[in-house]
Amino acid sequence: MKKVIIASTSTLHEGEYLDYLLSELQHHFEGCQTILFIPFARPGGISHDEYTAKVRGAFARIQLQVQGIHEFEDKKQAVQQAKGIFTGGGNTFLLVSQLYQYELMQLLSDTVKNGTPYLGTSAGSNICGLSMQTTNDMPIVYPPSFQTLGLIPFNLNPHYLDPMPDSTHMGETRETRIKEFHAFNAVPVLGLREGSWLEVKGDSVVLKGNLSARLFLQHQEPVEMSAGADLSQLN
Amino acid sequence: MKKVIIASTSTLHEGEYLDYLLSELQHHFEGCQTILFIPFARPGGISHDEYTAKVRGAFARIQLQVQGIHEFEDKKQAVQQAKGIFTGGGNTFLLVSQLYQYELMQLLSDTVKNGTPYLGTSAGSNICGLSMQTTNDMPIVYPPSFQTLGLIPFNLNPHYLDPMPDSTHMGETRETRIKEFHAFNAVPVLGLREGSWLEVKGDSVVLKGNLSARLFLQHQEPVEMSAGADLSQLN
Repeated sequence: MKKVIIASTSTLHEGEYLDYLLSELQHHFEGCQTILFIPFARPGGISHDEYTAKVRGAFARIQLQVQGIHEFEDKKQAVQQAKGIFTGGGNTFLLVSQLYQYELMQLLSDTVKNGTPYLGTSAGSNICGLSMQTTNDMPIVYPPSFQTLGLIPFNLNPHYLDPMPDSTHMGETRETRIKEFHAFNAVPVLGLREGSWLEVKGDSVVLKGNLSARLFLQHQEPVEMSAGADLSQLN
Repeated sequence: MKKVIIASTSTLHEGEYLDYLLSELQHHFEGCQTILFIPFARPGGISHDEYTAKVRGAFARIQLQVQGIHEFEDKKQAVQQAKGIFTGGGNTFLLVSQLYQYELMQLLSDTVKNGTPYLGTSAGSNICGLSMQTTNDMPIVYPPSFQTLGLIPFNLNPHYLDPMPDSTHMGETRETRIKEFHAFNAVPVLGLREGSWLEVKGDSVVLKGNLSARLFLQHQEPVEMSAGADLSQLN
């Protein structure tokens, strides 16, 4: 059975890395022992080793070991044999480019759909949707496609930010950007605020955490989905 | 002689569309009578006609007429015969996709380099750089390339936003995003704040408006360039 946690962010304000999710993860990755970490998104350009060390530190607190996928010669085998998989945040264009470069996109999708427990945060969550076309990231590299894992039947906007009423900035709000996406695409978009995550079990998709999430459907006014909402029928 | 105005934004907070630039534009487009407007970026998904009508209203105040490129059957000829060209803001991925779809990217670059006066705002400014890889926009469509007009020898980040010291949001700051770009690209990036523009005359590039701009060079700390700074040597 598909078993996925899709988190808006790895880190809450004034929190430690993955802190707020650790008790969930202990349950999610029960019996896994070692997690395969995909560090390709490299936040701020840090190295794969540095990023993996950071993740290793966090998972040590729930007695899980971590291996970075960059340490494996045969990366496909690493995905196929993984007991659990975590893709961290950073730049989604970079992450997607690398997954295609190593021919891992379809394989990773199949592997997770077949039941290997998966955790994504931020960019690692973005790729759980049908496409990466609602990412907030800068196009620092040119990926061969925007299509992603399709673990859920809609798209995500992690780190969702509400418009700031007092802002004098004239750049587009997040809501305007998603509206532009819907001028050309019919796929629903869920704006996932920091502190929220989706829990996917088989075909069930449930909004977890204390916050509501903002749902954007093409040609409709956005609506707030309460914490605990069932999003399984969304497509 | 190349004659280009590259503005961070079309509209200042509490200002009207193009308001703060009109006296500059009167001079810039002197003798042009009719401006060719490229509405492809379609902010918020508005139609080409609606967008062109808005621009027509603003340019009427300086006695210039406006024709939208979408009104022309032969869009290449429209660019070649234009007396002056304005590309408005909106979504840069969409704008770049359309310019490639109509095979206008190289032609527009050549035309402007040969002396047809050009104005860009926001997305229309983004494309003046070497690539669109430092845009803030969402990848709502997949363009065949990120390469753009190359009217200046560096990249731009329009609507540049300084990090907000009191923010509790954990999404990447603009500075972090540009740093990620520089992990993979050596091209300088100029963060152009709202109210700033570049005046390009031949090989001369000068920062105009009252604000400083933030310059990012690979492997270096960002620096502030004062209003009036000469950026001609930047590459």
